[in-house]
Amino acid sequence: MFYLGQKAAQAIDVDLMSKYGYSIDQLMELAGLSVAESIAAEYQAGRVLLCIGPGNNGGDGLVAARHLVQYGFHASLFYPVQPSKDLYKALLRQCEAFKIPLVQDLKTSIDSSDLIVDALFGFSFKGSPRAPFDKVIETLRNTNKPIASVDIPSGWDVETGDPQSAGFCPDMLVSLTAPKQCASGFKGRFHYLGGRFVPPEMASTLGIPEYPGTSNCIRLA
Amino acid sequence: MFYLGQKAAQAIDVDLMSKYGYSIDQLMELAGLSVAESIAAEYQAGRVLLCIGPGNNGGDGLVAARHLVQYGFHASLFYPVQPSKDLYKALLRQCEAFKIPLVQDLKTSIDSSDLIVDALFGFSFKGSPRAPFDKVIETLRNTNKPIASVDIPSGWDVETGDPQSAGFCPDMLVSLTAPKQCASGFKGRFHYLGGRFVPPEMASTLGIPEYPGTSNCIRLA
Repeated sequence: MFYLGQKAAQAIDVDLMSKYGYSIDQLMELAGLSVAESIAAEYQAGRVLLCIGPGNNGGDGLVAARHLVQYGFHASLFYPVQPSKDLYKALLRQCEAFKIPLVQDLKTSIDSSDLIVDALFGFSFKGSPRAPFDKVIETLRNTNKPIASVDIPSGWDVETGDPQSAGFCPDMLVSLTAPKQCASGFKGRFHYLGGRFVPPEMASTLGIPEYPGTSNCIRLA
Repeated sequence: MFYLGQKAAQAIDVDLMSKYGYSIDQLMELAGLSVAESIAAEYQAGRVLLCIGPGNNGGDGLVAARHLVQYGFHASLFYPVQPSKDLYKALLRQCEAFKIPLVQDLKTSIDSSDLIVDALFGFSFKGSPRAPFDKVIETLRNTNKPIASVDIPSGWDVETGDPQSAGFCPDMLVSLTAPKQCASGFKGRFHYLGGRFVPPEMASTLGIPEYPGTSNCIRLA
């Protein structure tokens, strides 16, 4: 399998939308669904806290939250920076319809959760996390609760990963579309792939394995 | 379970979008996914011909076609009236990316298929089918190949069904969101429910049963 660098990941996203005609709503729905399915495959339906970032990675997390509730999980959202974009507002409204509460205090909420979902930053992230996300990542580094990261462990560099071990290593990583280069440094228990929307030509170029049956995710390691 | 009349079904669609914030892209993706999952649960992955109508039922069929290819089916599309709306053009482009051919001759294509998907008309349909769909429905009535209908057997009245037995009775019916009144007259082998996006409050009002695990469909009968 091909591990994607940042530019390749960005180019694939552009192709999915402009060449193959997907809307962001469709891609995000299938991505978030696959994150929820991966989680449900490995963890008991318990209390899950989803940490939501301000971009598309956060959007995937909002979709995953809704599906997790449908699978019997008790979800809550920590969503410190809520962008005004209609897409995210609509996804949040859907979470409200599923009675998913927003929480304010991260530490207390982590303490009362069985699993944390890290949907803060995805493959577009570069550099060092700024406030308030620097503190959020520090808090995630200091918990012993299992963390499931969406696409990239937040704070890691999409290509070089976390060479100084300055961030956290999640228990689960759900790569979306195809794994990014940093995934080769993932040392957690469960590595999944999701986002079952890649056309055959692109799947073959990227060396994406066949999804089993009607599953929306594959366990890679 | 509550069987919906036409007005109730329309009101629910409005609520899903305006009150709960879903986009048509999201609803159609999850609906089409559930149709494909239902089909894969009951039929061997073979040659499937999808008959696509000019509205949202056809859109669900285009999404289902793409997922069926991912499940190993050989899909083709009979799509006699292709609307110019961007949504449908994009869904068709996605099918092209999955190498799903468009066919012109319905009878020949039925003969070389194992299963027909009827995604012609949904719950908004009223009255008698007009050309060219009158002939399409007549052709479907005269085949002995199994037919899987999306939401409503096309040509049936959403409420009264097919009291004069003028149309066809599909082998499978996949009701979306909740069954419509005509579904009580369905005599085929497999009745499924799909469209796993209904918020708990609405699900409880409609008496929608719990979906099992991470499945996107339920077998009702």
